Amino acid sequence: MFRPTIPIEITMAAPKTAITPTRQDNYAEWYQQIVKAADMAEVSPVRGCMVIKPWGYALWENMHKELDVMFKDTGHENAYFPLFIPISFLQSEAEHVDGFAKECAVVTHHRLTMNAEGKLVPDGLLEEPLIVRPTSETIIGATYAKWVQSYRDLPIKINQWANVVRWEMRPRVFLRTAEFLWQEGHTAHATEEEAREETHTMLKVYEKFAREYMAMPVICGEKPSGERFPGAVATYSIEAMMQDRKALQAGTSHFLGQNFARAQGIKFQDRDTQEKFAWTTSWGVSTRLIGALIMTHSDDNGLVLPPRLAPKHVAIVPIFKNDDERVTVVAHAKEIKKRLEAQRYEGDAIRVTIDDRDMRFGDRAWYQVKHGVPLRVEVGPKEIEAGTATVIRRNTLAKENQTIDQLVATVASQLQAIQNELFEAADKRLKSNSVRVNSRDELLAFLGDSDEGSMDKGGFAYAHFCDRPEMFEWLKQHRLTARCTPLDEPRTPGKCVFSGDDTDTVGVFAKSY
Amino acid sequence: MFRPTIPIEITMAAPKTAITPTRQDNYAEWYQQIVKAADMAEVSPVRGCMVIKPWGYALWENMHKELDVMFKDTGHENAYFPLFIPISFLQSEAEHVDGFAKECAVVTHHRLTMNAEGKLVPDGLLEEPLIVRPTSETIIGATYAKWVQSYRDLPIKINQWANVVRWEMRPRVFLRTAEFLWQEGHTAHATEEEAREETHTMLKVYEKFAREYMAMPVICGEKPSGERFPGAVATYSIEAMMQDRKALQAGTSHFLGQNFARAQGIKFQDRDTQEKFAWTTSWGVSTRLIGALIMTHSDDNGLVLPPRLAPKHVAIVPIFKNDDERVTVVAHAKEIKKRLEAQRYEGDAIRVTIDDRDMRFGDRAWYQVKHGVPLRVEVGPKEIEAGTATVIRRNTLAKENQTIDQLVATVASQLQAIQNELFEAADKRLKSNSVRVNSRDELLAFLGDSDEGSMDKGGFAYAHFCDRPEMFEWLKQHRLTARCTPLDEPRTPGKCVFSGDDTDTVGVFAKSY
Repeated sequence: MFRPTIPIEITMAAPKTAITPTRQDNYAEWYQQIVKAADMAEVSPVRGCMVIKPWGYALWENMHKELDVMFKDTGHENAYFPLFIPISFLQSEAEHVDGFAKECAVVTHHRLTMNAEGKLVPDGLLEEPLIVRPTSETIIGATYAKWVQSYRDLPIKINQWANVVRWEMRPRVFLRTAEFLWQEGHTAHATEEEAREETHTMLKVYEKFAREYMAMPVICGEKPSGERFPGAVATYSIEAMMQDRKALQAGTSHFLGQNFARAQGIKFQDRDTQEKFAWTTSWGVSTRLIGALIMTHSDDNGLVLPPRLAPKHVAIVPIFKNDDERVTVVAHAKEIKKRLEAQRYEGDAIRVTIDDRDMRFGDRAWYQVKHGVPLRVEVGPKEIEAGTATVIRRNTLAKENQTIDQLVATVASQLQAIQNELFEAADKRLKSNSVRVNSRDELLAFLGDSDEGSMDKGGFAYAHFCDRPEMFEWLKQHRLTARCTPLDEPRTPGKCVFSGDDTDTVGVFAKSY
Repeated sequence: MFRPTIPIEITMAAPKTAITPTRQDNYAEWYQQIVKAADMAEVSPVRGCMVIKPWGYALWENMHKELDVMFKDTGHENAYFPLFIPISFLQSEAEHVDGFAKECAVVTHHRLTMNAEGKLVPDGLLEEPLIVRPTSETIIGATYAKWVQSYRDLPIKINQWANVVRWEMRPRVFLRTAEFLWQEGHTAHATEEEAREETHTMLKVYEKFAREYMAMPVICGEKPSGERFPGAVATYSIEAMMQDRKALQAGTSHFLGQNFARAQGIKFQDRDTQEKFAWTTSWGVSTRLIGALIMTHSDDNGLVLPPRLAPKHVAIVPIFKNDDERVTVVAHAKEIKKRLEAQRYEGDAIRVTIDDRDMRFGDRAWYQVKHGVPLRVEVGPKEIEAGTATVIRRNTLAKENQTIDQLVATVASQLQAIQNELFEAADKRLKSNSVRVNSRDELLAFLGDSDEGSMDKGGFAYAHFCDRPEMFEWLKQHRLTARCTPLDEPRTPGKCVFSGDDTDTVGVFAKSY
C-alpha cells in the first residue's frame, strides 16, 4: 500500500520551515500551507475569490502558453466573447439552466448613487438582469448562429481564455473558487462524426498536456450520466489521482450533440440544400490544474514543480559571509547564470534566478525549496576555488558536487531526469492504488467511510456498473463518486456491483474533492 | 493641409469590395466598416459589449506578447486579482468614487430562481453589493496593505492582464465599450522619487511600443487637471493623431501620490523606524489600441497592419483555373511558405498563410487586402514557370515581380520597409497638422466648430494656458479637449489664450473621440 515517502535529508540545519502539518497528519491543511509557503495565492477580501500571486500566476502563464500552442496546432483560433449573459439566454437550454442558475453572480444595476446617509447604493435598474458567465455555451452559441449560414461556414473552431464565476459556498483555493481563470473551446461542425472526433481530439490534447508537461498521469474516460455537463450528450474527462489517493477531474471535453445548436439556432444549409442544426462541442481546463499540480508532486518541504512548467528552472543561491565575499560570489553566480541561460530545455532558454537577497543563506535556500525550483545551485568562495557548485534536485533533495562545465553541459538532461522521475512516481502511485472490486462491500472496504482529509484509504476502484440514479444516491451517502468509464477499458460481461444486473460497462470509483 | 491619398491601383478588376463610405465621405462610418470588413469585432447581444473575432484577437495577442516582454524587462511580474470589488472599497477614495460610480455594473444577487410564471429572476441577495472592476486600484491596494510591513517589502511592481467594465451609454467598438480587455500595472514604492520615476518609465514604455510596434508617433505629456484619473496626483498620457486629425489617448500612467495608500492603508516601517504611507502608481493600455491602430494606418481599401504586430506577415494567394492547376500551384505555394517561415523578422519566424479557399482568385486577393496583411504573394502556373511571384505591398499596393529567391532573401527587409513607411506617413501627418495658436479665435479657426465625423478641420493646436475650470467649460461648449502638456515642451513665458493671464505652460488642444 502507498505511503508517502518524506525526504528529510536537507542541506541546511533544522527543518524549521518545512510544511506543518505534514501530508500524513492533515492532507487538506497541508495543501493550504503549501499554497501559502510557496506564495501561490491567497484568499481575497471578496468572498470566494482568490488573489493569484506572481509565483502562482507565472505557473499559469506557462500552462497557458503550452496549451495555446497545442490548441493552435490542432487548428483552433482564439477570440473573446462578452463577460455578461442575459438571463433569457441561459433559460433557452433547460438542463443548462438547472446546472448553473443556483450559483451565478447576477448584475441588476448599472450605476451606484449616494443615498441620504452618504452610503453608496445600486441605481439604474437594468431591464433584463445579466449573469456573469459561468461558462459561455449560450452567448457563444448565439454568436455562431449569426456566423453560420452554409456548410461552407463550418467548422468553427474557437478557444477563449477568460475568467468565469460560479458562486461557491465552500471555496478552496485553486480547486473551487467563485472566480477562476480558464480556457473554453467552442466548436461547431456540420456532422456528428466530426464533432465527436473533435471532442476526442481535445481530450487527447489534455491527456498529453497532463502527462508531458504536468508529469501527471491521467485516466481518459466518459463521465457517467449523473456527472455530465448540464446540457451535454456526453462528457469526457481526464481524471488524476492525488497523493491522498483522491480523484481530481483535471479537464473536460463535451460532445453537445445538437442541444445547444437547437437552443441558440445554429443552423446551416448543407450540400444537399437541407437546413440542419450544427453539432457542437466545448472543452476546458482551468486554474484548478494548479491545485492538481501541487497535490500531485509537492512534499512536506513545500512545492515541487515539473521543470517543463516551472517559472524558474534553476535557483542559484550564493554563499557569503561578508560584503567582499558577496561581491565576488554574486559576480561568479552571474557568470554561471549567463552560461546556463545560453542552454536550451525543450526549446526554451533555461530560466535562472539568483537569490542574493539580504537574508541568511539558509533562509534563501529554504525559500527556493518551498517554492519548488527544480534545481538549486549553491556556490560560495570554496566552490569558486574548486570550479564547482553544489547542485540539489528539488524532488529528491539529492545533492551532488558538479563542476560548472558539467552543470552547464548537463542542465537540460538533469531537468528532464526530474521531469521523468516526477511522472514515474505519480504513475507508480496511480497504478499501485488501482484495484478491481466485485461488490459494494469490497468498494467500501477499499475506499472506506473515513474522515474527510484523512489519507488512510483511497485509490481508484474499477467496478462493473449500470449507471442508474440509485447508484448515485448510494455513492453520495458514502461520500464516494463515480469518476468515469475509461476509454481504454474493454467491454466485458459482468454484474453491476450496485444493482446486480448484467452490464458490460466498467467504471472508476473514488473519493474526490 | 493633409488630404488622405487613396491608392486605387490594384491587381484585380473593379474595386467592388473597397470600403464604403471612404474616409473623406464619413470617417466615423468608414471606421465601423473597416472593423467589419476585416473581421476584427462585432457588437454582441449584450448592450455595449463586443465580440472580438479571431483576426482582431490575434492582433491583441501580439500586442499583449510584446508589451508583456517590455513590462518584464522593466522588472514587473504578472498576477491576478478579483473581478469583483465590494462597494465599500470604492467609497474609501472620494475622487475615485465620483469618477466610477456612475458607470459600473453592480452585482446584487448570487443565484437565479424560477418564479411562478416560469421566468428566471434574481435571488440570494448579497449582504454587500459588488461592482465589476472598472479599474483595480482599490482591491489591489487593499491586498498590498497586507503584503507591506517594512521598507524591505517595497517596491511591489505588479501588472495584471484582465477585463474591466465601465458602463457606456454610447459604445463604439474598441474605442469605448462597456467591457474591454487591458493591462493595469500597480506599483508601490517607499519614496516619492521612485514612484515618480516608475510613472515616467512606463510612459516611455508605452511611447516605445506605440512608435516601434504600432508605427504610431505619439506626444508624451501630462494631462491637465480636468482630465486626470480620479484620485491621481498627476496623470501622463501618450496622445496620437488619427487620420481625421482627432486626438486619441492611447495609454496612461498615473502618479497616485499617497492618496490610495492612505485610503487602503498601505503603510510600512521605514529604515528610520518611522511608519510611512507608500507612494503608488498605476498605468494601463487597452483594446482601444486596436482602434488607434486601425485609424492610424487603414485606407479606403481596408485594414493596413504594421508588420511587427500583424497576425500574418505574408498571404500567398495561388492562381489556378482548374483542379489540376490547383494541385500544382498549392504544392508550390507550400514550398514558398516553408522557405519564408525559415526566415526571421525581428526575432520571430515569418508568419505565412496560404489562401487557397474555394473562392474566386479576385475575392481571395481582396480578402487579404481588406484584412491588411503586409505582403501579398500571387503565384500561378506562369509564375511557377518563370520562378517568380507577384509581390504586393499592402500599404502602397505597389506590385513587383520578384524571383522566389529574391523574395525569401529580402522578406524581412521588405516588411521593415513597410513598418518604416507607415511610421513616416503617420509622423508626417502629425507634424504637418500641428500648429501654434495665440488666441481662442485662432484655436477655433484651426479646429473649427465642424460636424462630428467630418474631416474638414483638425490637428494639434499648441497654446499657452493656465488650467482653470472656466477653460474646460469653454472647451466643452466647442467640443474641444485639452490633451496634455508635452514633456519635451520648454517652459516659456506667455499669456493664457483663455484667461489672458501670464503662464509658462503650453498645452495641446484637439478634437477627440
